[in-house]
Amino acid sequence: MGSLPLDASSVRPLDPEAFAGDSHAVVDFLAEYYRDVDKYPVRAADLEPGRLRKLLPEAAPEHGEPLDSVLEDVRRDILPGLTHWQSPSFFAYFPMNASAAGFTGEMLSVGLNVVPFLWAASPAAAELETVVVDWMGKLLGLPSRLLFSGGGGGVLQGSTCEAVVCTLTAARDRTLARLGHEAILRLVVYASDQTHATFQKGTRIVGIPPSNFRVIPTSAASGYGLPAGAVREAVERDAAAGLVPLYLCGTVGTTGLGAVDPVRELGEVARRHGMWLHVDAAYAGSAAVCPEFRGYLDGAELADSVSMNPHKWFLTNNDCCCLWVASPAALTSALSTDPEYLRNVGTTTGTPAAIDYKDWQISLSRRFRAIKLWVVLRRYGAAGLRAHIRRHVTAAKWFERAVAADQRFEVVVPRRFSLVCFRLRAVNDDVNRELLSAVNESGRAFMTHFVVDGKFVIRLAVGGAMTEMQHVMDVWDLLQGKADEVLQRYYQL
Amino acid sequence: MGSLPLDASSVRPLDPEAFAGDSHAVVDFLAEYYRDVDKYPVRAADLEPGRLRKLLPEAAPEHGEPLDSVLEDVRRDILPGLTHWQSPSFFAYFPMNASAAGFTGEMLSVGLNVVPFLWAASPAAAELETVVVDWMGKLLGLPSRLLFSGGGGGVLQGSTCEAVVCTLTAARDRTLARLGHEAILRLVVYASDQTHATFQKGTRIVGIPPSNFRVIPTSAASGYGLPAGAVREAVERDAAAGLVPLYLCGTVGTTGLGAVDPVRELGEVARRHGMWLHVDAAYAGSAAVCPEFRGYLDGAELADSVSMNPHKWFLTNNDCCCLWVASPAALTSALSTDPEYLRNVGTTTGTPAAIDYKDWQISLSRRFRAIKLWVVLRRYGAAGLRAHIRRHVTAAKWFERAVAADQRFEVVVPRRFSLVCFRLRAVNDDVNRELLSAVNESGRAFMTHFVVDGKFVIRLAVGGAMTEMQHVMDVWDLLQGKADEVLQRYYQL
Repeated sequence: MGSLPLDASSVRPLDPEAFAGDSHAVVDFLAEYYRDVDKYPVRAADLEPGRLRKLLPEAAPEHGEPLDSVLEDVRRDILPGLTHWQSPSFFAYFPMNASAAGFTGEMLSVGLNVVPFLWAASPAAAELETVVVDWMGKLLGLPSRLLFSGGGGGVLQGSTCEAVVCTLTAARDRTLARLGHEAILRLVVYASDQTHATFQKGTRIVGIPPSNFRVIPTSAASGYGLPAGAVREAVERDAAAGLVPLYLCGTVGTTGLGAVDPVRELGEVARRHGMWLHVDAAYAGSAAVCPEFRGYLDGAELADSVSMNPHKWFLTNNDCCCLWVASPAALTSALSTDPEYLRNVGTTTGTPAAIDYKDWQISLSRRFRAIKLWVVLRRYGAAGLRAHIRRHVTAAKWFERAVAADQRFEVVVPRRFSLVCFRLRAVNDDVNRELLSAVNESGRAFMTHFVVDGKFVIRLAVGGAMTEMQHVMDVWDLLQGKADEVLQRYYQL
Repeated sequence: MGSLPLDASSVRPLDPEAFAGDSHAVVDFLAEYYRDVDKYPVRAADLEPGRLRKLLPEAAPEHGEPLDSVLEDVRRDILPGLTHWQSPSFFAYFPMNASAAGFTGEMLSVGLNVVPFLWAASPAAAELETVVVDWMGKLLGLPSRLLFSGGGGGVLQGSTCEAVVCTLTAARDRTLARLGHEAILRLVVYASDQTHATFQKGTRIVGIPPSNFRVIPTSAASGYGLPAGAVREAVERDAAAGLVPLYLCGTVGTTGLGAVDPVRELGEVARRHGMWLHVDAAYAGSAAVCPEFRGYLDGAELADSVSMNPHKWFLTNNDCCCLWVASPAALTSALSTDPEYLRNVGTTTGTPAAIDYKDWQISLSRRFRAIKLWVVLRRYGAAGLRAHIRRHVTAAKWFERAVAADQRFEVVVPRRFSLVCFRLRAVNDDVNRELLSAVNESGRAFMTHFVVDGKFVIRLAVGGAMTEMQHVMDVWDLLQGKADEVLQRYYQL
């Protein structure tokens, strides 16, 4: 079935038998990929731009081709050019978890292919989303005012950046409704020098002047958390100058270093000055499934919105971002549309059970992401997800201790979750850079870097779905070996 | 395997055997769904909000549950609450095609779960995207200046709305770089009263004053296309008043009626006044795979950007929106970010082969959508896709003739693609509304409506992956029967 070319006149795109034949073949292909993934260089071996483009024809084929030749091309031309995010030795950026549950949940979403942009356009899909965001919120210990069951509510989006654009738009329009649109030129947004670049981009997208984006410096003294006092001073200075403080972003688990901003203190500043507080827990929010990490979200009841990405460290294949808001009305009054072609029987608003999610996001159309996250929660349960998080935290702790015990290295900032930031001490940045390159070029692991206080730092982000203690021990062996080589060269010069 | 509950301490989320067992079970579940989909009421039968919410527990389970019970719950609780977008008798909104190729392509994307936000973060994934958007552009006969091979380029996004926000941001920032940010208050955006609501929402999101969104009226005389003369007058009036005409949206295949704006004439107005012209061919762009429909895109070489959604009528499961731009630099200079944690080996810019796609979209992270569209193009080929489009156009033509031949009905606007807009003539809107309700409540088909020139119009959008001529003949039978009943009641009163 999968091996026959398709005759154009007889294309039956959802013939159940042909569908099943092709899909079973791809399942087996992927299972084989997972079996072999640690045999590939983690970071794409061949970094010459244009390699794939040269291999492929310049136009789509005129006639359909058999699945076998497509899969053969994937194996031969594409896999060797990928960076293998699911490799157990992928420690770069942040993890992007795949899992059997996330995959099968996504298969249900993609296979049913319904579009729950209006409640009426697929009632059970919209309702499942309201259920699953409440489940997630409870699982992470979020305050009830952010849940539907407590008067707030949540939505699943594709990324933190979308969530930021939506909440910035809501905050902006709430303020402009009072002050007039001209005041857009006076709105100010606050973040730290550790806040994700997404916030600056989002601020720009929604039309707030780039010069009104305030970057508050952090330092080792506060563990690179955003000091509430400095925010207060900046806000007061801006207010005194006739500007309008609008939006403050606090992060729990920054991208560079895993730093944590003091949510409660930031919330108090935001409340006092009528600002929208968003808490970005994209990566570290997953850890809050374990009670021992909930303290970092203390004060979240002062936030107007909170977001985290199950697609990072929560076994939910890309994409899935949870956004919770205290005031759904603030969001929907900025983002709703009501054209005639969408006014159909069954559309209602106001109750959590009958939400038109198009008014909670940038786009009109959307995927049935809720079923993916629901399958993950059902299949692994809270206990399974806690075990998943703790496995990585334990491995990261082990690695942190190993680094600290080796005189040649230093831990740059204390580990809070599963990210360890370290460097070779007593040598310059170039040597550290060389060490990282040597590791990555070996193909046996992939890590990325950060720069803080002018120092080049290597990041080991533990969290891959297949990553076990042994892989972390292996990468430490690899690092020690490469450090020997690099330092030997350095001291010989 | 799939039937065993998971022990928390032994969760191995990507164990190849467990992955394959679960995934094969879900493939069979979906194949069965496709076999049975025409047995469900097309529109969700039970429209009482809250039905599903009441059936589900208030919190996620503590312990993992077997796949079988999850699938049993999907079958019992979720499927009956869905509107079945893949039913062959779904004629509402626009089609949202699933297909075996789209599904297996998405499986590869979701299973590999790589994140091609930087070229270096997955080179072959980024490169495949540059190849596949060029393939698509050539297939639709787009001018080469919108393709990488001609100095422009394309990107795959999730929705037209995202594409609109990106291009509006690019157009806005190109103009503000010249005039200063204060000029944001003077920017003006133009569309017709038939343009998708997405454009008004996008304009609002990017901070352009809502009062600067111009809605140009259309009429039956122009087939509800946007009259270029009226645009020119509005633009000249605004310019004379000190405003800054920024962005003009033309649509090929409007959502309400399938109307077509005169792209070339709009392009000439846009050029003369330095405006960005975007052509939205979300639905009808797919038809351009057939040469007989390419004329509607005549003048596209005057556009700054063009978008269309393979996830509508091009056998590519949701989501997938192609956006092409003539000037990639205009897009990336508005949307690029370059934080330290993303400065890694291998990042280059400027060549189509080494693109950092994060600078072409709202979000940082992204999915490997290119492999999905590539599998669709490979599996069906240009010939298969043309056959797919023509099958539906033929069925829509047949339906249009049947309606025209029945004295009780009228075709409201000439069909151009596969959308037929019609109504019962000589009776009021309430009777038409009643007819539509009767059809939808039968569960045997689902259509939606539109209002034009104050008249209620029923829309039959042909285009489902399983929709054959017979289904269109059946819905015409159904409509005639329901019309008998409704008109009998009407004339008895």
